[in-house]
This record gives sequence, C-alpha cells and structure tokens, in this order.
Amino acid sequence: MFASQLRDRVVGRPLPGHFYTDPEIHEIELDLIFGRQWFLVATEAELPESGDYLTVDVGRRSVIVIRDDDDELRAFHNVCRHRGARLLTDARGFVGNVVCSYHSWTYAPDGRLLHAPDLPVGEDPACLGLRPVAIRCVAGLVYLCLATDPPGDIDSFASRLLPYLAPHRLAEAKVAAQIDLVDEANWKLVMENNRECYHCAGGHPELSRSFFPTYGLQEDEVPERLLTDHERFLRAEADLHERSTALGLPFAVIEDLVKPNLGHRIAREALDGAGESFSMDGRVLVKRPLADLREARLGRLSLHTQPNVWLHVLSDHAVVFHTLPLAVDRTLVRTTWLVHADAEEGRDYDLEELTHVWNRTNVQDSRFVAITQAGVTDPAYIPGPYTVSEYQVDDFLSWYAARMLEGLGHGD
Amino acid sequence: MFASQLRDRVVGRPLPGHFYTDPEIHEIELDLIFGRQWFLVATEAELPESGDYLTVDVGRRSVIVIRDDDDELRAFHNVCRHRGARLLTDARGFVGNVVCSYHSWTYAPDGRLLHAPDLPVGEDPACLGLRPVAIRCVAGLVYLCLATDPPGDIDSFASRLLPYLAPHRLAEAKVAAQIDLVDEANWKLVMENNRECYHCAGGHPELSRSFFPTYGLQEDEVPERLLTDHERFLRAEADLHERSTALGLPFAVIEDLVKPNLGHRIAREALDGAGESFSMDGRVLVKRPLADLREARLGRLSLHTQPNVWLHVLSDHAVVFHTLPLAVDRTLVRTTWLVHADAEEGRDYDLEELTHVWNRTNVQDSRFVAITQAGVTDPAYIPGPYTVSEYQVDDFLSWYAARMLEGLGHGD
Amino acid sequence: MFASQLRDRVVGRPLPGHFYTDPEIHEIELDLIFGRQWFLVATEAELPESGDYLTVDVGRRSVIVIRDDDDELRAFHNVCRHRGARLLTDARGFVGNVVCSYHSWTYAPDGRLLHAPDLPVGEDPACLGLRPVAIRCVAGLVYLCLATDPPGDIDSFASRLLPYLAPHRLAEAKVAAQIDLVDEANWKLVMENNRECYHCAGGHPELSRSFFPTYGLQEDEVPERLLTDHERFLRAEADLHERSTALGLPFAVIEDLVKPNLGHRIAREALDGAGESFSMDGRVLVKRPLADLREARLGRLSLHTQPNVWLHVLSDHAVVFHTLPLAVDRTLVRTTWLVHADAEEGRDYDLEELTHVWNRTNVQDSRFVAITQAGVTDPAYIPGPYTVSEYQVDDFLSWYAARMLEGLGHGD
Repeated sequence: MFASQLRDRVVGRPLPGHFYTDPEIHEIELDLIFGRQWFLVATEAELPESGDYLTVDVGRRSVIVIRDDDDELRAFHNVCRHRGARLLTDARGFVGNVVCSYHSWTYAPDGRLLHAPDLPVGEDPACLGLRPVAIRCVAGLVYLCLATDPPGDIDSFASRLLPYLAPHRLAEAKVAAQIDLVDEANWKLVMENNRECYHCAGGHPELSRSFFPTYGLQEDEVPERLLTDHERFLRAEADLHERSTALGLPFAVIEDLVKPNLGHRIAREALDGAGESFSMDGRVLVKRPLADLREARLGRLSLHTQPNVWLHVLSDHAVVFHTLPLAVDRTLVRTTWLVHADAEEGRDYDLEELTHVWNRTNVQDSRFVAITQAGVTDPAYIPGPYTVSEYQVDDFLSWYAARMLEGLGHGD
Repeated sequence: MFASQLRDRVVGRPLPGHFYTDPEIHEIELDLIFGRQWFLVATEAELPESGDYLTVDVGRRSVIVIRDDDDELRAFHNVCRHRGARLLTDARGFVGNVVCSYHSWTYAPDGRLLHAPDLPVGEDPACLGLRPVAIRCVAGLVYLCLATDPPGDIDSFASRLLPYLAPHRLAEAKVAAQIDLVDEANWKLVMENNRECYHCAGGHPELSRSFFPTYGLQEDEVPERLLTDHERFLRAEADLHERSTALGLPFAVIEDLVKPNLGHRIAREALDGAGESFSMDGRVLVKRPLADLREARLGRLSLHTQPNVWLHVLSDHAVVFHTLPLAVDRTLVRTTWLVHADAEEGRDYDLEELTHVWNRTNVQDSRFVAITQAGVTDPAYIPGPYTVSEYQVDDFLSWYAARMLEGLGHGD
Repeated sequence: MFASQLRDRVVGRPLPGHFYTDPEIHEIELDLIFGRQWFLVATEAELPESGDYLTVDVGRRSVIVIRDDDDELRAFHNVCRHRGARLLTDARGFVGNVVCSYHSWTYAPDGRLLHAPDLPVGEDPACLGLRPVAIRCVAGLVYLCLATDPPGDIDSFASRLLPYLAPHRLAEAKVAAQIDLVDEANWKLVMENNRECYHCAGGHPELSRSFFPTYGLQEDEVPERLLTDHERFLRAEADLHERSTALGLPFAVIEDLVKPNLGHRIAREALDGAGESFSMDGRVLVKRPLADLREARLGRLSLHTQPNVWLHVLSDHAVVFHTLPLAVDRTLVRTTWLVHADAEEGRDYDLEELTHVWNRTNVQDSRFVAITQAGVTDPAYIPGPYTVSEYQVDDFLSWYAARMLEGLGHGD
C-alpha cells in the first residue's frame, strides 16, 4: 500500500502520517535508503592519525571507520568473525590493531585476521577478515555506503563539489566542538525541518540575525512584507558575488536535489549583518581564518546532500550537520564545528560563542520536530499545503519517494 | 477469534487474559470504544473563562477543549492543518487564539484559520480550519465523542441525569483539587475494580468508614455475617429517602448499564456513620455547602457511565473520577474534587482532609489492578466466578462486548 | 523457516543471528524449552522451613515454590482463581496460607481453596484450588517443569547424579549469599558463554588462578603453547583421582549433553594452585567444610544441565548458577553460594572473599554476552567457526535444536 502512496504522492504536500510512525516502513528505509545510498558519517578532521577510529551506528548495524597506516580511511562491519561480538564499543578512540575482547581474535586496520588461537584445521584465516564497507572522502567529508554495489554518481557529485569546497581545506581543519542531540522525531521530519526557513523568523531569533528571511523564495515570490529585506539581500548577494569572483571561488548555484542518488544543492549564500559568520553582529567568531583566502566576508558555502546532510562553510569556520536514524521516532543530529588546525581555543575563539547560534537553533528545531512527530502520529492529521519557500522539503520527499520506489522495484 | 469470544462470553466470568494484554485488541478498542462512544473528559468547572483550554490525550489522539468567546465549550483535534504539529502541548492553560509555534499558523477559538503567511495561490483558508470534535456538557460534566456521527442516546441520558444532578450545581462549582494517577493495568481492569465493593472491606479501610459493606447485594443475597450492617444500612437508607423527598430530590435508582451506548447508573445512596461525607466520622469536610440545599446529610449521588466514569456528589463536595487508556497496560485515573465556588481553602476546608479518603483508596486500587494485570498476563490464568456483589463488573463487560460486537459488525 | 534452519544447522557454527533477537522465536522457546523441559529454579537450602516460599518468573508466568507443612516442596501457578490477581508479589518470604490481597481468597500451602466469601451457589471450592506445577528435588537442587506431562528422564538423571552429589549434602547446607545479575543478552548466549573456557585466559584473570587453561581440550588437541599447563593439569588430575577414590567418591566423567531431555555433564575436575577452592591461592575459603569428607583438596564437582544450569561443589562450599530468560535480550543470572549450615560468617568465612572470584567472573561474562548480543543483532553478522575447546557450546545448540524440533513436531 505504501508503495502506491509514494507513486501517487501529491506534490506540495507532506506524506501521510504513517510514513513517520510505522516501524515496518522504518525498517524498509534502513534497507532501501541507509542500506543502499551514500550518506555522510563524519569529517576527516575527526580522524587525523593512523589508528584513529570512530564507530557509526545505523539501525542495528555498526561500522568501524579507521585510518589505516597508509593514511587512508577504511570502513568495516563492527562484528567479530568468530562468534559475532562487537569489536569496538566506544564511539571513538585509537587502536593499533582491532582486538576482540571476547576471545582475543585480532584484526589489522586493513581488516585482515592476524591472530585467532586454536583455529580448527581447514579454516582459512584469509577468509575470516573483517567485512569491508564502501567509504569515500570528498574534500574532507566522509561518506559511507552499506551496499555491496554502491551508486556510482558519487563521482560526478565529487567533481561538482570539489571546486566549491576544496579551497576551504576542511580535510586539514581540526574539530573545535562536536555535539550530539537526539531529536524525538522521525529522521525525515528532521530533514524536512532543515530544508525550509519558513519557520526561521518566528522560531530562530539567533539564526535570524544572519539568515535572510527570504530564503527559499524566487524573485517573483517575495511577499510585500519582505520587500525591504529582499532589497538588503540583493545588495549583499551582489557584494558576495563580486568578492567570490575576485578570489576565483565559483558562485553559481548547483541544485540537483531529486534525480541523482546523491541528490545535492551547492550554493554560496550571503549572510545578513556584517556577513561574515554566525554571530550576533555577523562578524567572524574565529580570528584565524579557516583557509588562507584573505577575505572575511564570504557568506556561507551551503551544501545539502540527501538523505542526511546540511553544512555551512564560512571564512572563519565550518559547521557540519548530519542525521542518523535511531528508531522510527528518534534521530541523532550530530553537529561538528571545524576551525583551522592552528586556531587555539581561548586565544583565537571562544567555544561558547562559536557554538552559540547553532546550539540554540538545534534545540529550537528539536522541539519543532518533536511536536510535529506527535501531531503526525494523530489519526486526525491531514497533510496540509507547503508554502512556496518550502519547495526543498518537497524536493527531499520527491528524492525519498524515488529512491524507495527504485528499491521496491517500482522505479522508472 | 476474539469476536467469537465476545459473542460466546460466559456471563459471570471475566474475559480471557489476552483482552487485557493484546496491543491489537487495545487498538481496536481505541477505535470501537473510545473512537465511537461518548466519554467524559473534564468538568466544566475546569474551564471557567473564555480562552481557558485543556488537552485530552486518547491513544495517539489529542483533543483541545476550549471555552470560546460566546462562553460555549468547543473541541478540536490538536493538529495543525499545515504540517501536523501539535498546537497546544500543555495539559491546560489560557490562550487568545491557538497559534502553532512551528510556522505561526493561527486559529480562532472557534477553529477558523485566521493567519497563515504566504499560503499558495488556490489554497482556501476556509478549508484549513481546525477539525472539530463532538462535545456535550451535561449538568457540568463534559463529554466528548470522536466519531463523526456520535450516538444519539446522550439526549435521553441527559434528560434522565439532569433532575438528579442539576440541583447540585456542578457547573458553577470550582476545582479544589485534581490528582492524576497512572495505574499499571488495562483500562478495563480499572473500571472492573470500580464496579464492585467486594474488595472494600479488606482493601479500603478508610473508605469503609462511609461505604456500607453490603454494596451490590440484593435483599436476599445479604450473607449472615453482614446482617447487622445491613440493618444499619436499611435505617440510613430510609432516613435518606425521607430527607431527599422533603427537598424534592429524586431518589429512585436508574440502572441502565448495558443496553444504551451511554450505559449508566444513577443512584442516591446512604453513607455510614454521620452519613454526610467521605470523612472518618462521616461529617462534612467543607463548611460551605456545594449547593444551597440546606441539608448536610444527603449521602452520595452516585453516577456510573460506561466506559470511563464514576462520581459521587455529596452535600459539601463532589468527587469525579474518569479513566483514559494510555497503553494496553497503563491507564490514567484522574480525580477531581469540586466545591462551591466561594468555598475558601484553609477557611472552609482543609485540602489534605478533603482528599484523604479517595487518595488512599485510589492508591490501594492502583495496586489491586496492577497485580491483576500481572496475573491475567500469565498463561496459567483461568477466569474465575464473580460473586453476586460483583454484578456491575459483569454489566460493564456485557456493555463492552455489545459495543465491540456492534463495531465489528456482529451486533444484533 | 527457522525450523529448517535448526534441522540443517551447521555443526561447529553458532546459530544465525535472529535466533538471538527475534521476539517470536523467543516466545516459541518459552513454550517449547521453558514450557516443556525441566529446569532448575532454586536450591533446597533457600527454603528451609515450612511456609518458606519463593516466586519464579519465567516469561509471563510466575510460579510459587513453597515448603508445605509436611516438609515437602510444592509449586503452584501464582494466579488467583477468582479474577487472576498475582498472589505473592515478593521474590521470597514466609506465609501461613497464601492469601490474595485483592478479595481475600485464601489457599493452603497444598493449594486447596480454604476461604472465598459469598461464592455463588453451584461453585465448588474444590475445583478452585491453585493450579499445580511439577517439581522435583534432586540432592538439594530444585527443578520445575511447566508441562502437564513432564519428561520422564529426570529419574535416570537423578540416579546418575545422586552418587556424585549426595555426599556433599547440599540439601542440608545454608545460603551464604545469593546475587542476581541481569545480562543484556539472549539466554542462549549466556549459556553458550558458560559452556567454554576459550575466553577464560584473556577474560577471567581471577578465575584463571584455579581453572586450567586446557579446559575443553582432548589429549591430542592441546596446542604446544599449553603443554606445560597440561602437564601440571595431568598431575593434579591424577592426584584428585586418587583422593576421590580413597573417599569412595565416583570420579568418571558422565557426559550426556545432547540426547536426554535433561541433558547433563557430571565431572570431578582438578583445580590449579592448591586445588581446594576458588581463591587466589587455591586454598579453602570456608573453615567449616561443606560435608564431613575430611579432605580439603577435592577440586570441583562440576554439573552442567540443559537448558539453564552450571554449578561447582568444592570441599568448603558450593556455587550454583542458573539462568532465566527475562526478554529476548535480557537474562537473569542467579548465583547462590552454599556453605555448611553451621558455618558462621566472620568466623568461618569472609563473605567478600567467598564471592570475589565469581562476582568478578560474572560481571566479565556479562560484558562478553552483551557485546555478542549487539554483534549478532547486526545484519552483517556471519556465524564463524567454533574452536575445538568450544565443543560444549555446540552440544548446547544441538540439544536446543533437538528439543525445538521435537516441540515443533519435526523430531526423529
């Protein structure tokens, strides 16, 4: 039934309520979305040294991401090949080899089984290595794919993204802060909330200092009450265009949110106020610039990738958001602030100031999605109309419906 | 299968255990009982002013009950017509309009959509008002029905109840206290527990000061050990009959617990001791009488309505109980004490004293239903025989079985 | 499907993951394993006096084990025959009769209904007694069977066990300590963990002081790295054989773990170090010997019974372990330390010392099974090979598969 509901989805309206509440649909999503598509799980800055690892939980799966001795990131299922014990139980850490604490089976960072006492005759250690998971780094962002045959369009995505993102040198940055929040809502509601700023003016007083209230509106859609704001935005945009071009930074918006497996939107957007960073006055929050671009007023390089990412790169820092489903009604939102590797807390930035706007915004969003989860669970819920500035929410659902239907064998 | 178990139910025995433990049966009950029948959710005294509201949770549904500017109570599904957010998240409060905190859509207390910025062309605000829920006030009691075509017998119920209840003027009373208890048991076990006093002598030492131990027994069913109690009861009953008649208060018992959708029992019952109130000596607990009846010794006007109510109106106060299912094995029991609007705490009554007997009784009952829930969950459970004084438990189940079978299309 | 997986089970490999995680399989196990087989629930020492009782929870069932006035242990379903209330809600205690707290129905310790006020005409109290559960004491160990027609091989098991266990007089011992631990794992993983010591060297530093690292290995399977340990073991074993024979204690290993309903292994095993007890140096922990055998160096009499027991009897004390499933992924592990009835804490033993090794070992095992539960839940889990010393794990699964297939009607 839900397949036909996806096929006949009314564009411009949210999904029926059970898409956000039915544990069976959630299991299918873990298989068809998070089991087949590329999704972001970390930034390279989190794993600077060989032996650094982190574990990623997606549904009932756990994956080890580890930097090997050759400096490459590798990923493996976090399951011992003997009797199935979880190998690494911490969220992150450092190891020489991966040693199972149960019976001491030992694996190299490249997955090979190095040691397993008293293995029966006829068992070949070469067949008992860790099971690999596809991994891909793109300009400092770490994407995984759990499928054995991952979608190939990550190549074209990477070649589109690199000219925009590489100049900001995220792979060489360091993590200033990372904060996890658990939203009491389905992961799609968390993503839908991110994909519009119709709620920003009323719901995000801090963020509204730097975000223009016309986000998501085309020229001819700007309502009269926002005309003054729109004119300020046009001036800021023209200014940003000029500065970017002067630095050789690409400026054109790339928006391909629905068709590719790795649907994406790349845009350099002006910020309100001083236009430099997510501060109350718009000035930089970190004295040491993120890259050596000799320009503080760079607005934000914004990246959206389906199904689980949004991020902003500013002249002084970057803030990367990704979500992971924990249950049909619980979602992890992980926020990572990146600064220049040489920036020093206390001297170059104040951690509380650096994280203030997005910590507040995340908590505000957390409440919005929780009350929406409660409401769409109600049998009395009827999907209402999206307004024009919510078009990316609709795009997210179109992407989602297409991937689900492909997975179910109903694709075109 | 459970339909045939209802049809072939053995009168005089409890239901098989899975009726109290199976989440699927619980869902069907939410649909066929709480989704189709009238049930009490509040007293009018809880919402004295225009703009006063409370929210009622029933299963996955939430309903707003709000007093409109014309002083009428109205009820709406607590779901925004835009993207489904819960509108009011507090249990009670006061509002001018109902404003969604997510995107600021604004509704009048009569449900009309007043404000929704940037609504797409072609969307008619008149079609995006709050969805109404049927509501009916009867002598100060507030009943809801979630069905679009509510059962009509609330009219005959109201005309039967009004002569008994109206003289006590509950609609003009004020709330002295309201206490919620969550029983770890299926809602039917909570109701079944209420429908008999076979457990009172052993289980409710405080309540037994005012309840006669012969409750539920016919003249010829009184066992020898209770004959002395019964004689005292007969004297108290004769006295109460006389006093009631002198005041023009109807006295005859109305008992129609099984056939009507809104099954009910209305009775004026004598109390033991001084016969005035639920105190240790039977004397009034509130100096200011609830209504101006100039008689303290009025026993209790008792009302039972299926599926979720019991209440007692005394000369000095009223105590109203209603239950709402929270899960197959968790039930809300809300107790509301009403006194005259001019009665003043500290001067006219002591809150601890006023609530003492029923607080203790509720906690005692909470344990009884919890151990019964545990026991009926056991595969070794076999429904045993009801004793004669438990006939109203059987009536409750007969009412329940009839409503379920009607809903399933097996009615006669 | 899971029936064919049991029939075609690969010997030498664990079960597929869903056997440890699927709530439906768990329900079937509660029926076919814990609902049909004998399993240990207590030691007689826990119930020394008439009126002593304990309650045993198995899935949704609760059973009362009570010592009757004739000194026999009896067992009954813990459910009132009236409306199903749990009768005894404490884990253990003392009663004269079993009285239901709800409506005061009263049962004798032999199950007869003694008192039920106002029972309707036609109801025969003789038909309303407590429902009995099969119970059997074997040399101080208390086994229950929930089936109405329990497997008969408990007789042959008892006649095999008695010559080994009776000399240690467990029925006359007293409980020095009892500690419950809840493992976050399926009950089978808890049992599988117990059935091998491949993890002992790395995982149990305290226990490894007394357990030889060659446990589970045949003569020709001992790897070179363990040859020195093995020689020490052979000397200790020869010594133990001699001492046992001198005392008339049977020494031959009985191993019948798979075929009987009550699969079992009985063995007297040498301990490392001083060879007397589970202490750091191998010396006794209790000055007063458990029985009057005039020999401290008796190693351990080890008993494994399927599906839920392992225990060790030493010259100075016994330690009895049994497991009970609480949920598909939660298991109770109860450890009971028994000493001579006249042994006095403080004088004859120190409680902390007595329980030290197994408390530590239990907590270590608890973590091992929890990480294994997490890992086998992962869709990436592939059952790997057992090593030779893990053969009893395989035996446990063979026993399990046979009992399940018999229950499903697929037995041979």
